[in-house]
Amino acid sequence: DTLISVKTVTMIPGDGIGPEISAAVMKIFEAAKAPITWEERNVTAIKGPGGRWMIPPDAKESMDRSKIGLKGPLKTPIAAGHPSMNLLLRKTFDLYANVRPCVSIEGYKTPYTDVNLVTIRENTEGEYSGIEHMIVDGVVQSIKLITENASRRIAEYAFEYARNNKRTSVTAVHKANIMRMSDGLFLRKCREVAENYKDIKFTEMYLDTVCLNMVQDPTQFDVLVMPNLYGDILSDLCAGLIGGLGVTPSGNIGANGVAIFESVHGTAPDIAGMDLANPTALLLSAVMMLRHMGLHDHADKIQTACFDTIRDKKVLTKDLGGSAKCSEFTAEICRRVQDLG
Amino acid sequence: DTLISVKTVTMIPGDGIGPEISAAVMKIFEAAKAPITWEERNVTAIKGPGGRWMIPPDAKESMDRSKIGLKGPLKTPIAAGHPSMNLLLRKTFDLYANVRPCVSIEGYKTPYTDVNLVTIRENTEGEYSGIEHMIVDGVVQSIKLITENASRRIAEYAFEYARNNKRTSVTAVHKANIMRMSDGLFLRKCREVAENYKDIKFTEMYLDTVCLNMVQDPTQFDVLVMPNLYGDILSDLCAGLIGGLGVTPSGNIGANGVAIFESVHGTAPDIAGMDLANPTALLLSAVMMLRHMGLHDHADKIQTACFDTIRDKKVLTKDLGGSAKCSEFTAEICRRVQDLG
Ligand SMILES: CC(C)[C@H](C(=O)O)[C@@H](O)C(=O)O
Ligand SMILES: CC(C)[C@H](C(=O)O)[C@@H](O)C(=O)O
Repeated sequence: DTLISVKTVTMIPGDGIGPEISAAVMKIFEAAKAPITWEERNVTAIKGPGGRWMIPPDAKESMDRSKIGLKGPLKTPIAAGHPSMNLLLRKTFDLYANVRPCVSIEGYKTPYTDVNLVTIRENTEGEYSGIEHMIVDGVVQSIKLITENASRRIAEYAFEYARNNKRTSVTAVHKANIMRMSDGLFLRKCREVAENYKDIKFTEMYLDTVCLNMVQDPTQFDVLVMPNLYGDILSDLCAGLIGGLGVTPSGNIGANGVAIFESVHGTAPDIAGMDLANPTALLLSAVMMLRHMGLHDHADKIQTACFDTIRDKKVLTKDLGGSAKCSEFTAEICRRVQDLG
Repeated sequence: DTLISVKTVTMIPGDGIGPEISAAVMKIFEAAKAPITWEERNVTAIKGPGGRWMIPPDAKESMDRSKIGLKGPLKTPIAAGHPSMNLLLRKTFDLYANVRPCVSIEGYKTPYTDVNLVTIRENTEGEYSGIEHMIVDGVVQSIKLITENASRRIAEYAFEYARNNKRTSVTAVHKANIMRMSDGLFLRKCREVAENYKDIKFTEMYLDTVCLNMVQDPTQFDVLVMPNLYGDILSDLCAGLIGGLGVTPSGNIGANGVAIFESVHGTAPDIAGMDLANPTALLLSAVMMLRHMGLHDHADKIQTACFDTIRDKKVLTKDLGGSAKCSEFTAEICRRVQDLG
């Protein structure tokens, strides 16, 4: 008899197809006997004291306890006047590292093979400072904020990640030829941190050059670290190389183990509630979560079942080239998970 | 007898392989009997009165007279302390539109076929304002500057370009979900201008979404218009789709016909002076220049000769997959130009 400690995870199902794909993930976790209990919470924008936007107290309180969240897509009506809930979550829990592994999926054909890289995006500042002014009529400035602390922190995260995941190189992505002070500071911190990781190869490259080289030969890249906006762009570009946001996992990592894993695709309102959604991105994000929690056996099992299902091509959702419903695709993965024992 | 008016063009050969590829272009223009005389000028950073960086007076004076420039690559030693000469040229002549057509080249294999799009980049402000401050130790801000005038001007340029080049759609690329005021202003101006071009389809898209869709299916895009940094990124990404900066032309357009056309690849110091460089990007930029000057017959002839040479695959420089010297590749294009009469 082994004693299994069951851990609580805050589940934020999200909008549109969110509830369906969350249910799919929970089913697969059950089949895999993952020692997780879910605390479901809704996240909508709430106006707090002083008019500041915040997430609902019961969601905050659950995350404060569990420290770990899994999140489906949230709609962000620009017109609503509040910030993106995705951003508000990252901010609320100071989730400073956005981590997106992009690995080619066997059996899912794209123009590229053997992609195997990770984008690590600074998640708290840069162009996402939210500070903007109108100087005079018709003249607007947005502030890109780069700090020494956040730059050092994300650089350290990237090198630690590389070391812990048996990766061999880290590339800092920047435009320090243009933004000499801000990107210059970011780059300097990367160089300094690199000094402490002599086992990892460090290179630096302009963002435009990375984009060009990425579409020509993505296999040359390993771990990439960069300021906020560049990460937003590059992570989507890289997701495109392996099949899009429907198959790409994502994690937002903070200090002391706090983290939220999320699918970064949209809410797909056109197919919501129709049992047609593809839960892969959320499932692979949940697999990242399991590894983050040290539950590697469960992670391996679910990941294998998912990739085997895709490679096998027999039971696939429409966006993956098949005609199965979300529930059928989910059942197939559950069956394989159980077969794996 | 027809009277041919010969026009003067300022030729800035540039550094590294610049002189070789400029010589190649001039040879091909001679073979094509293009009615152009060249005024060669060097461009290096000069410190003017008040310590401001400027381009050499004789280059400025030549451009002021000719209004049209063709430019090879210029090296930008960051350590030198002066801004990129490429940027200084754009600024000096207020070349507000950076235009890069990306069209698949028959016979030059890449993972993509039938790419046929144009990126139009605002070339004077945005993240390239050059305004940065250290707020306190370890905290730096860079200013992204967006103005109504520059936004309207580039939007108008994009729609005019679309109309004059028989293109059917313009996509505004932005992150107005994050930079609501600055990118919001840019986007608003695009929408307003779109109202005056009912014959052109207008769409708007987030930069990250464009990057993702671009690598999945670039054929969905036509004309794209965007702020400065986004253009820097997207134009390189798109160049990658069709074979890289060695085959991608570029033009910087200002008011009243003023324009500088340039190859945007590097100076390739490792092969400089060895007769190994590929002049295609500069040649295709020169073809853009001919069209800008209304010399369409000469443009067509040179373009056909260049693309025929590449499709034929017999005489190619090393980077294009062959073993010919720059001079041999150039001679082959000259021969074909002459055959075309
Ligand atoms: C939803 C949006 C605000 C967000 C971003 O811009 O960061 C998204 O694109 C992402 O990459 O997570
Ligand atoms: C040379 C460099 C300053 C320039 C830029 O960043 O604009 C280049 O990348 C370009 O695209 O022309």
